[in-house]
Amino acid sequence: MEFMKNPAQIENRSMEIIAPYIKDLNLSFEETKIYSRIIHAAGDVDYAPLIKIHKNFIESAKSAILRGANIFTDVEMVRTGINKRALKKFGGEVFCKVADDDTRELATRENITRSMAAMRIFGKNLDGAIIAVGNAPTALFEVLRLVREENILPAAIIGVPVGFVGAADSKAELAKQKKIPFITVEGTKGGSSIAVAALNAILYLINDSRN
Amino acid sequence: MEFMKNPAQIENRSMEIIAPYIKDLNLSFEETKIYSRIIHAAGDVDYAPLIKIHKNFIESAKSAILRGANIFTDVEMVRTGINKRALKKFGGEVFCKVADDDTRELATRENITRSMAAMRIFGKNLDGAIIAVGNAPTALFEVLRLVREENILPAAIIGVPVGFVGAADSKAELAKQKKIPFITVEGTKGGSSIAVAALNAILYLINDSRN
Repeated sequence: MEFMKNPAQIENRSMEIIAPYIKDLNLSFEETKIYSRIIHAAGDVDYAPLIKIHKNFIESAKSAILRGANIFTDVEMVRTGINKRALKKFGGEVFCKVADDDTRELATRENITRSMAAMRIFGKNLDGAIIAVGNAPTALFEVLRLVREENILPAAIIGVPVGFVGAADSKAELAKQKKIPFITVEGTKGGSSIAVAALNAILYLINDSRN
Repeated sequence: MEFMKNPAQIENRSMEIIAPYIKDLNLSFEETKIYSRIIHAAGDVDYAPLIKIHKNFIESAKSAILRGANIFTDVEMVRTGINKRALKKFGGEVFCKVADDDTRELATRENITRSMAAMRIFGKNLDGAIIAVGNAPTALFEVLRLVREENILPAAIIGVPVGFVGAADSKAELAKQKKIPFITVEGTKGGSSIAVAALNAILYLINDSRN
């Protein structure tokens, strides 16, 4: 069977196919890249009207990465998917505590999810960092509580938890707050691949503008 | 804000919400579990009519795992997401070669994707194994070529690559062949989270029936 095997060719063709679905959204060049990567990662053009990008998100996320900010994720799949080589050029690292012993202990003691406990333990480390939540609504709710009640100030939040219990509510709360620049997806859709697509899109924007 | 924090409660509630969307599909108990996990992982009930499970897939995948078969994935995110502790009880391990040097060399030499090169290098190791392709259509095309031309006989294929270039075609070819039991999703949707959901659903089915 004949099929495209060249990676650059595949990516270009994919972006061409996606273009008509986002052309009416009045996106900037950078937003177009982010939307395209998310839609490609989901194989789902229905994401187009659901993606919400705060007006300062791209600048804030880019400058955080350029100054070596770290990235904190809710689950290991998000950590795995992030292009750590591109990030490391600027000094940043990716952290996930969902499988750590102290996280497990706190989660059991409080009867909360491990990804929620992990965000609570990160605490002050989230100041100035980028947070990428791809799976657990509870982790995003906890980040928003830390911002609201404990004056934690992340540089940007990628908040795309997925599912039918809490995901839509947690993302609506993210979109409502005005303190922290964010990207999110309305409703139940989302996931680790979406969080990764958004974060890597930022990394590629930085990389492209430096080549 | 009030929200559900208990993991078991969250999962049960999610399955309840999904149930009405799959009730007309005449699914077995085991199929219901797999469908529910996939739909939950995508946050997308539109998956319901797109999921295709070969009649021998569940039995073949379960018995492969029980006899200690290995799992081979196209990308690291799929490897990361698989419940390796549940798998290891039976002796199986998860392998991914997408980032290895020999894979990179072959990909560059042949001008093919790295995940395609990785499957080619796995070669005979795929006999009797479970293959989980969550990202790259080229990897699934290569697996199908190995089956067709080199008599490689995996126990089961989870084939849910995503995107607009080749994904739908590769999955249609998977669904058309009759040699290897499979699960797939029609069209452009799919992804690492979907491959992981399908594989972990099998692991939980095994685990549940042994408790």
